[in-house]
Amino acid sequence: MAQLRIALAQTNPVVGDFTGNADKLVEWTRRAADRDAHLVVFPELFLTGYPAEDLVLRSSFVEASRSALTAVAARLAAEGLGGLPVVVGYLDRTDGDRTDGDRTDGAGKPLNAAAVLHGGEAVMTSAKHHLPNYGVFDEHRYFARGNRLPIFRLHGVDVAIAICEDLWQEGGPVSVVAEVGAGLLVVPNGSPYETDKDDVRLELCARRAREAGCALAYVNMVGGQDELIFDGDSLIVDARGELVARARRFEEELLVTDLELPELTDLPEEAADPGDGSEITVERLVLSAAPVEPYRPEPPVIADRMDDLAEIYQALVLGVRDYVAKNGFRSVILGLSGGIDSALVATIAADAIGPSRIHVVLMPSRYSSDHSLADAEELVRRQGLKARVIPIADIVTAFEKEIDLSGLAAENLQARVRGMLLMSLSNEHGHLVLTTGNKSELAVGYSTLYGDSAGGYAPIKDVLKSLVWKLAQWRNAQPGGPPIPENSITKEPSAELRPDQRDTDSLPAYDVLDPLLRDYVERDMGRDELVAAGHDPELVARILRLVDLAEYKRRQYPPGPKITSKNFGRDRRLPITNRWRESR
Amino acid sequence: MAQLRIALAQTNPVVGDFTGNADKLVEWTRRAADRDAHLVVFPELFLTGYPAEDLVLRSSFVEASRSALTAVAARLAAEGLGGLPVVVGYLDRTDGDRTDGDRTDGAGKPLNAAAVLHGGEAVMTSAKHHLPNYGVFDEHRYFARGNRLPIFRLHGVDVAIAICEDLWQEGGPVSVVAEVGAGLLVVPNGSPYETDKDDVRLELCARRAREAGCALAYVNMVGGQDELIFDGDSLIVDARGELVARARRFEEELLVTDLELPELTDLPEEAADPGDGSEITVERLVLSAAPVEPYRPEPPVIADRMDDLAEIYQALVLGVRDYVAKNGFRSVILGLSGGIDSALVATIAADAIGPSRIHVVLMPSRYSSDHSLADAEELVRRQGLKARVIPIADIVTAFEKEIDLSGLAAENLQARVRGMLLMSLSNEHGHLVLTTGNKSELAVGYSTLYGDSAGGYAPIKDVLKSLVWKLAQWRNAQPGGPPIPENSITKEPSAELRPDQRDTDSLPAYDVLDPLLRDYVERDMGRDELVAAGHDPELVARILRLVDLAEYKRRQYPPGPKITSKNFGRDRRLPITNRWRESR
Repeated sequence: MAQLRIALAQTNPVVGDFTGNADKLVEWTRRAADRDAHLVVFPELFLTGYPAEDLVLRSSFVEASRSALTAVAARLAAEGLGGLPVVVGYLDRTDGDRTDGDRTDGAGKPLNAAAVLHGGEAVMTSAKHHLPNYGVFDEHRYFARGNRLPIFRLHGVDVAIAICEDLWQEGGPVSVVAEVGAGLLVVPNGSPYETDKDDVRLELCARRAREAGCALAYVNMVGGQDELIFDGDSLIVDARGELVARARRFEEELLVTDLELPELTDLPEEAADPGDGSEITVERLVLSAAPVEPYRPEPPVIADRMDDLAEIYQALVLGVRDYVAKNGFRSVILGLSGGIDSALVATIAADAIGPSRIHVVLMPSRYSSDHSLADAEELVRRQGLKARVIPIADIVTAFEKEIDLSGLAAENLQARVRGMLLMSLSNEHGHLVLTTGNKSELAVGYSTLYGDSAGGYAPIKDVLKSLVWKLAQWRNAQPGGPPIPENSITKEPSAELRPDQRDTDSLPAYDVLDPLLRDYVERDMGRDELVAAGHDPELVARILRLVDLAEYKRRQYPPGPKITSKNFGRDRRLPITNRWRESR
Repeated sequence: MAQLRIALAQTNPVVGDFTGNADKLVEWTRRAADRDAHLVVFPELFLTGYPAEDLVLRSSFVEASRSALTAVAARLAAEGLGGLPVVVGYLDRTDGDRTDGDRTDGAGKPLNAAAVLHGGEAVMTSAKHHLPNYGVFDEHRYFARGNRLPIFRLHGVDVAIAICEDLWQEGGPVSVVAEVGAGLLVVPNGSPYETDKDDVRLELCARRAREAGCALAYVNMVGGQDELIFDGDSLIVDARGELVARARRFEEELLVTDLELPELTDLPEEAADPGDGSEITVERLVLSAAPVEPYRPEPPVIADRMDDLAEIYQALVLGVRDYVAKNGFRSVILGLSGGIDSALVATIAADAIGPSRIHVVLMPSRYSSDHSLADAEELVRRQGLKARVIPIADIVTAFEKEIDLSGLAAENLQARVRGMLLMSLSNEHGHLVLTTGNKSELAVGYSTLYGDSAGGYAPIKDVLKSLVWKLAQWRNAQPGGPPIPENSITKEPSAELRPDQRDTDSLPAYDVLDPLLRDYVERDMGRDELVAAGHDPELVARILRLVDLAEYKRRQYPPGPKITSKNFGRDRRLPITNRWRESR
């Protein structure tokens, strides 16, 4: 057996920030060197950030990534870190000149690649074989398929590399590892958060480690990128699939682990059949043949697990923090109604970037109840937010002098005046406007286009109303005293756009609505299945119609952190012009 | 040789409207029967409409398509049309139950299919082999790959079927036709419009016909579906690649053509190698072995070609007409400034659905010049639109009493008051709001979020400003007298949001800006390439920065008809959170 100290750099890159990402690579490699690590592994496409979407199709972007890789390899050596091998994801391309536009097969096409940096150079490169093209992924649009399994010998241990989806799908480079033999499989990932995904992930890693017959080190990105939240959760399992080490979630972490791995001496095979119709070429390189001198291993780190609500809350906080910071904002602004949605969004934002950078505006109308203003003011007091009050009655009157409006048009007007005030203050002072709508409202279209839906980021866009309440209660139960006024949690929901309005005037109770929305929107169940699952047939018909008709509103909604399988973002793409109605 | 009268049903389906699309199939088949046609061919995915996007991933939608196919085949027979073979595109699936979520390989996965309907049944089916996954296409997300080449013998002629992209890519079923022999290759298509695509299309059909050694009948969809415009242009070439018949563009048409085709008697081969690593199985069926009695052929129809401006103008008109009709609107509303953009949009809309359904609102502010109102009123008078005037000064004053705004924030406020007035009137009366921004503005972010960008459809979203002027001049030169006041065309462009404002205060002249935008946005050229192509380096840096920073605004923009390779819609997908700047 041979010893190896491996450092998983669970880090947060920024899309397109080659300089910043390279700086971070050097800094974290130095930290790993300071810990006497023998190998550092960074996430998938770390140098470019991920996903870079159609930037990948720009030749200038691809060449910038290739240059950044060469430069950072040289810089590592120049800074005395050239002896420590680094595995990092970057954007590369196949050889030759591109000839046929956006199509991704053939010459000069982008590759979702990984490199081994050593001695000032990229000494090995390979590319992702299985390209995910479902949910939020469009990798058939972007990448040509890799067909190599790189294995480098490091201190007597054969270390193989595969990338993200190569782990999830059968066949491909991972399926070849058992046949050709390796002591460790390292896997850079950009694997977005979804509730309950951590359990699936550990199971998968354990299964693949057993199949490959070697230990497996899974390093995931962390951070928010538009709608995606990368949750970290990097981990190592041994060859029997037992968990050895695991990083925290939603935070950067250098997970340093000592492993005892088989010292391999077989001859390399050159090609192998992954059983999926393709051929995988095995590429081998010896960096150092002799094992390290025996040393006393450090005890491995296994982060505590989080409960489900803590996990979701942290995902939302990270989403807000990174969207604000990575887009260069210094402060946010939102309307505070006294209701639960805006109270929760303000609290998430305050946890993300600090209460002094949260500007809230109370915009009472002629239909606002007394408790609305009082509850909003109480929240401001508890958290120390920056607040101002702007009554909207006179502005609404000015509109009504010019045009006659009734019913929904009159209700929408009030929401739009509020949206305009927030956008005006945003334009004047540079705050990012946070939109406070929840997923239940968004699903059934219970919101106003250019009104409450105006803004740049929607922190609870993917949170059903019943979960909004649970998260508020969970947050209030944390140490430090409850930030949200109890009355905002317990009172009956109302948009307050007409006298005595209540959500239940238009919608069923949320404990009936939300399970139906989950089955229809997230699980894609059809009308007959929904009825068979126990949902009331009339309610099914009524709600499905609302959901189907609200597509345009959802399309225009700001992005927000994705926490479910379907968040009304890139994971769910529906035509606007569409006569298909499940409710028919 | 054998004679065959083939009818290409260049038709306009509606996504998800199985009933309406089936009705149309029966009606057009009857029309073909009345013309004594021997074969009718409908476009790709005609029964479902195209593209149906993520509806394809719903089992209930797939089963509805399969049922609709069976039902319409039976109905054709019941209505006495069972003897006339119909080739039609529909959504099918592979056998078995789906097991792995959204992934499209394996059991129970959707197929982009075509069927031959005859004698009350679907007697043959096949599925698209080459799945496009670039530009606006995401077919790897949706479909499993077909691997059969169906050939049916009709009146002594072997007729092969391939679908759309199978024609564009090398290999696959089309490459097998020459080897196994056919007298005619029919190709259902859903091929979206782009300027100059008609020339490419004819060349491609001619080349494939020569390669296949047989005549080729290309039938395209027509109509608007969200951002896509299908332009028709169905055509037939003979085995030498010579054009035989060609349908009009942007209109439904039954193109009936008499062909003289080789009578084939070779034995069928069962499988063939398309040279792309897959295997294509040839499936044969004899519907009728004997040629028809000789008859006198009708002269073929070749529609006149359109000039470039006519073509684009008709595409925009069709886009508006179909978006309005297919989404169930009866009227549209837009703000009329007296400038060229809103004048052109009003004119396109009037040409699309008639002037009596066009509501325009003139919303002068304190900065509007006299000619603005006068030019807008002159346009209303010339076209007979429904108009009203709503001054915005008092509403702007009401806002200014509550908050202090300066600079851009104050300018945006005026645009937003106008947007709110239009949305309010839309909500009250049910009009669709048309957004009047052009592509140049949208590219550089010269528009107001929730202001001039508010609305449901943006007819000139993909039209650069210099083309806006050309289209206005072209339209004014058509018979019936110029609908657009000359002053709206000739005056200097201004947003009129502050005193004496001109577009050139912030932007270069459009004859300098637009070529740069075309190279950067549509041709994806990098900074160095742009400078090498002769664009001024300082201007390149300044404009690229504006374009890169305006991504969020563009993301929130309404859909509009796509006429170029990059329309800021699904064809160009960029992250919002992004530090990559070509201008760096």
